[in-house]
Amino acid sequence: MSAAPRFALGVDLGGTRLRAAAMTEAGKILASEEMPTEANGGPDRILADILRLVETVSTGIAAEAIEGLCVCAPGPLDARNGIALHIPTLPGFDDFPLAAMLGEKLPYPVSLENDGIAAAVAEWRYGAGRGVDNLVYMTVSTGIGGGVIADGRVLYGRMGMAGHIGHMSIRPDGNVCPCGNAGCFEAYGSGTAFTARGRVAAARRRDSSLSRYADSLHARDIFAAAREGDALARDLVAEEAEILGQGVRNLLHLYSPDLVVIGGGIANAFDQLEGGIRAYIAARALPPFRTMPIRRAELGDRSGVVGTAALAFAHAKRKA
Amino acid sequence: MSAAPRFALGVDLGGTRLRAAAMTEAGKILASEEMPTEANGGPDRILADILRLVETVSTGIAAEAIEGLCVCAPGPLDARNGIALHIPTLPGFDDFPLAAMLGEKLPYPVSLENDGIAAAVAEWRYGAGRGVDNLVYMTVSTGIGGGVIADGRVLYGRMGMAGHIGHMSIRPDGNVCPCGNAGCFEAYGSGTAFTARGRVAAARRRDSSLSRYADSLHARDIFAAAREGDALARDLVAEEAEILGQGVRNLLHLYSPDLVVIGGGIANAFDQLEGGIRAYIAARALPPFRTMPIRRAELGDRSGVVGTAALAFAHAKRKA
Repeated sequence: MSAAPRFALGVDLGGTRLRAAAMTEAGKILASEEMPTEANGGPDRILADILRLVETVSTGIAAEAIEGLCVCAPGPLDARNGIALHIPTLPGFDDFPLAAMLGEKLPYPVSLENDGIAAAVAEWRYGAGRGVDNLVYMTVSTGIGGGVIADGRVLYGRMGMAGHIGHMSIRPDGNVCPCGNAGCFEAYGSGTAFTARGRVAAARRRDSSLSRYADSLHARDIFAAAREGDALARDLVAEEAEILGQGVRNLLHLYSPDLVVIGGGIANAFDQLEGGIRAYIAARALPPFRTMPIRRAELGDRSGVVGTAALAFAHAKRKA
Repeated sequence: MSAAPRFALGVDLGGTRLRAAAMTEAGKILASEEMPTEANGGPDRILADILRLVETVSTGIAAEAIEGLCVCAPGPLDARNGIALHIPTLPGFDDFPLAAMLGEKLPYPVSLENDGIAAAVAEWRYGAGRGVDNLVYMTVSTGIGGGVIADGRVLYGRMGMAGHIGHMSIRPDGNVCPCGNAGCFEAYGSGTAFTARGRVAAARRRDSSLSRYADSLHARDIFAAAREGDALARDLVAEEAEILGQGVRNLLHLYSPDLVVIGGGIANAFDQLEGGIRAYIAARALPPFRTMPIRRAELGDRSGVVGTAALAFAHAKRKA
């Protein structure tokens, strides 16, 4: 190992945004770039865009000083072998050897990781979960994803697919989830589901300030109206907190974390949801789980690139 | 380390039976004993019974050849510190330092482990799960418990309390569970819940062979009647398989095991349930999880003592 500064590159391949960053092991970001994901451009276009962003953020860094690159994407994917099995938001990535395809063009190791795991690692190493051994990270936005740290390590499971928390069913005969199953946590707790409930309720309640939005109502409007005291909006927020509480309560019994970190778009209203989630857990969990803290994610949009860069460092150490 | 044979002792402190065994690291049981648990005798009586059983099974083994003793009990317990936090079936064990109390009387290290984790380790090391890195063990009897092996290690989490799979709620507004929460997997899938559904249904269906049992109906009677073609019994078994499928499906997405091992009383009818569980998973899980195998536990009543003895060896190595 050289004593010269070392860097790792992180890429967050999301359904709408493609981000890249170069980072030191202390978590300092040297350069970052982002662009819209050309979701319908197919793998060739996306690979070219990733390579261009990577070149931009690594400008001025010697290739020998780069420990590696890690890319995160929505699952399911086979992280161990660097293969995207299926990315619902990105056509053409079925059974696609993403890590190997990028590795052919780059002089350092390339790995692939689930985006929920990457964000969990980011919050664990540099964000709201610093210093704990057991952490559940839950992102609530269009869907619900996450990642788990247990006993001081990332929880992978077979093919690195543990922690698909959004597809834990909480009502097996309930609403259909985008995954095809009934009653998934995601189908009830996601920002999408929250907004859909808001639109239905607003159409029925002319006395609410929400009724003027009709089908343009968004989650942020509901939270804003609740802050201003709108009764319907407050009920909707309380219901969302209870649903998130139901999911978090289950995760406590399954993973026994030291804390749960909540990220994604819904985290912008964390202060409005936290009380309801905590109250649900305090009332419904087994006693040893009742006081488990919940925190808002600290890294926001950067969690993917920070987590993947951290993982690139970790992967390099594992090989060394 | 001596080249002479080494042994470990395992104790399974159950709500109805107390078992002990001496085992080699290859999994050979040299001696085993069991007796009824004096559940209402209080900690003093139970500690004395444990010590007597331990003395019996270790007769003829030099104390220096014993790596340690591990005791398992129903949770929640603080495995790291050897403290039983609360044992619902054993009054008097609240915040009870079980490992330390036994350790005072014995010349080798004593540890405490959740009974679900102990059984998971037993099946992983010596039973149906040999050779895999990721395993979920699920015991279905009076309640539902379990333990998880992930990435080649026991999944502990905070205070060793991960894997409380019976208290994952699958219907948050559903039937009340003995734990006080609504809709727990245990409240629907346990042998107790299965039998209760059977009694209610049998009282209504005079055409079924089950109706003659009234309140003496037991799970085994339902499985026997289903084997003989009784329509109601078959429906009840199919419903139970679907409920177990709902729970197992969730566990796949949460832990991503290589296989699920099912133990407990219900495993006696594994052949009648397996098809329904598999069918549910094949229809409802995300594609990469659909083919995950399910196996019947192999160690039966011995899983607690085998798993604890295996853990005693593992704990001794960790300290060495």
